[in-house]
Amino acid sequence: MFKELMKNVEERNPLIHCITNQVTMNDCANALLAVKGSPIMADDEDEVEEMTTLCQGLVVNIGTLNQRTIQSMIKAGKKANVLGHPVVLDPVGVGATKLRTETVFQLLKEIKWSVIKGNVSEMKVIAYGKGITKGVDANEKDVINEDNLESYIEFAKNISQQTEAIIVMTGAIDIVANHKTAYIIRNGCKEMSKVTGTGCMLGAILGAYISANPKQMLEASTLATSMMGFSGELAKQRIIKEELGTGSLHIYLIDYLSRMNYELLSGGMNIEKR
Amino acid sequence: MFKELMKNVEERNPLIHCITNQVTMNDCANALLAVKGSPIMADDEDEVEEMTTLCQGLVVNIGTLNQRTIQSMIKAGKKANVLGHPVVLDPVGVGATKLRTETVFQLLKEIKWSVIKGNVSEMKVIAYGKGITKGVDANEKDVINEDNLESYIEFAKNISQQTEAIIVMTGAIDIVANHKTAYIIRNGCKEMSKVTGTGCMLGAILGAYISANPKQMLEASTLATSMMGFSGELAKQRIIKEELGTGSLHIYLIDYLSRMNYELLSGGMNIEKR
Amino acid sequence: MFKELMKNVEERNPLIHCITNQVTMNDCANALLAVKGSPIMADDEDEVEEMTTLCQGLVVNIGTLNQRTIQSMIKAGKKANVLGHPVVLDPVGVGATKLRTETVFQLLKEIKWSVIKGNVSEMKVIAYGKGITKGVDANEKDVINEDNLESYIEFAKNISQQTEAIIVMTGAIDIVANHKTAYIIRNGCKEMSKVTGTGCMLGAILGAYISANPKQMLEASTLATSMMGFSGELAKQRIIKEELGTGSLHIYLIDYLSRMNYELLSGGMNIEKR
Repeated sequence: MFKELMKNVEERNPLIHCITNQVTMNDCANALLAVKGSPIMADDEDEVEEMTTLCQGLVVNIGTLNQRTIQSMIKAGKKANVLGHPVVLDPVGVGATKLRTETVFQLLKEIKWSVIKGNVSEMKVIAYGKGITKGVDANEKDVINEDNLESYIEFAKNISQQTEAIIVMTGAIDIVANHKTAYIIRNGCKEMSKVTGTGCMLGAILGAYISANPKQMLEASTLATSMMGFSGELAKQRIIKEELGTGSLHIYLIDYLSRMNYELLSGGMNIEKR
Repeated sequence: MFKELMKNVEERNPLIHCITNQVTMNDCANALLAVKGSPIMADDEDEVEEMTTLCQGLVVNIGTLNQRTIQSMIKAGKKANVLGHPVVLDPVGVGATKLRTETVFQLLKEIKWSVIKGNVSEMKVIAYGKGITKGVDANEKDVINEDNLESYIEFAKNISQQTEAIIVMTGAIDIVANHKTAYIIRNGCKEMSKVTGTGCMLGAILGAYISANPKQMLEASTLATSMMGFSGELAKQRIIKEELGTGSLHIYLIDYLSRMNYELLSGGMNIEKR
Repeated sequence: MFKELMKNVEERNPLIHCITNQVTMNDCANALLAVKGSPIMADDEDEVEEMTTLCQGLVVNIGTLNQRTIQSMIKAGKKANVLGHPVVLDPVGVGATKLRTETVFQLLKEIKWSVIKGNVSEMKVIAYGKGITKGVDANEKDVINEDNLESYIEFAKNISQQTEAIIVMTGAIDIVANHKTAYIIRNGCKEMSKVTGTGCMLGAILGAYISANPKQMLEASTLATSMMGFSGELAKQRIIKEELGTGSLHIYLIDYLSRMNYELLSGGMNIEKR
């Protein structure tokens, strides 16, 4: 099944409209190209509806939220809903400021999201309307591990029921869930958190994967999450061997995304269904 | 002749004012530094005229067009015209939205451009006022190959006559033309399209080359286009040898731009005059 | 002493609020992560005060100054002052335009800065209210060398007295001074000026170092400046060995920042107290 999902992305080259943050925009575009999608970054209110119409999917990321683009996000999201395009929300740092929290709840109210991706701290804000994030990273206490995994799976399923979106909850272990099924992904490495934007890149790639696989969005999201993590593992092995650091980890991550194929991935992907 | 043009850039270190997109701004600045130019990225309406005055050339790229910077582009362009500074237009994604098309026609009307750089789809919009772009990339049907090359050369010459600008039309084969002479460049590789911003970087480099060579802008544009493509070829060879991907292609492309000299380039440049 | 300062950054992982430019935002975030800090990039007027409150330090960089963020800079700076958070100003290109000069003088008037970092040309504008910058780089005449070092040390001490901030004046030789003590740093290499944003990255790292060492800001700034320069030297050695260029210099610089530890640094840091 996963092999088919990957092939669909490669053959359909989905064009993904990203309204994303200024910090990682370049990485998101390159990550989309690496996985055989195609990026359009456009955030002016006067053109986002047309851009979304040209595309197969939409990704909204609030990493550097500002008043200029909130209306753009809403307009693009509504248009994508009308067109039936898959839409991904990456609520970066929700809970850190009133602006982010209010904007995310407005986005949740006005748009039907296919996938919401975030760390545990961000998901708690979405679930409970409040919470504490460490800026744009997860609070230190919000860690998914083998001991609390079951409860986080339930938590993810509950948010999915509440939001009617697939939940991609990232951490040391990743959980991808709808209201009844969860996939557990044990890929990636902690060094990835030392490169800015690995989460944003995953959000962009999720856009490509679900847009090319609209009828199997849960599995496509799982595959994309595993692929991102496994590319990070390969990148880490290479920087250790070459005695390099986080600068090269960043570049090699994109390298391995671009070199990924099903044969390579199947040797490393660690996915469990619950 | 080409040797002299390259030397002029190296000796004059032209300072280039870029009003460009948020996705590839960093790459454009690094590409300019790599070819011995110097970048200034500034887009606030209140300072663009002063910045343009300090510089030797201006590059305008509409990749992430927004209402805040349209007036900045017009003001800077008019100022550059008054000062006699070379100006480059990169009409990214023109035709994709009404905002882009209208803005580009306004820019064409109010400013005299030295060079317009774009893919075939973008050039068709400029020539005919309409056309279909695949977002920010060329439409699949708009491909330059050996069979249709003659007609695209005529097309480029015609747009040059219409716009009074040198046309740099990029594709599998690149065409650089004024209304009577065309240069055909067979450098570059298709992998470059898997790195975002290679076109934007070329636009920035064109700015440096024509600003340092204001009396030979056609040849300077040809040389810059060939140099960009050949750097991509060298970068590709290296990633194949090292078993890397598009992340490193991106970095090595800038590496080879920075290592380029006339001796190296003359071993690889493939330029034909028609 | 320096060993202790470095350990404090590693243990405290200071969260640094950056209101910075669009060109080098990604590099600043990655540089902060590399040195064991943590970045938040947020510039909307409606959230900057909350973001600054969550953080341990603030860095303001005017590289792509625009009307949208001037008020954000002022609000964040004032809030940081109230909270007693260390604040760094990087007045990129002050003197190049009226907007930059006026904004910097407003920032100097309304906010008490812990550190001001800039090249000689920028510092002259701050000291004398005017001067000539070459866009965002130092004017060619404003070079610190062994012959004029004494007078530049006096100059740095005087600006420190005038502004009540630690001055980090960058050039071929770097000077870090308060009104009575100066440290001279002979690290770095001229190739670093061929990568955009090495100065911006230093500004970000200074934020992390002084925020983790609020009682020894002069020494922490000195250490950060030396570490940045020495990482550049190591990166340069590696690109020479591997026959690469400025693209890889950029990446390896971040690599060595992330691999830096006191043992490695003490083998290369070149700091003199005056």
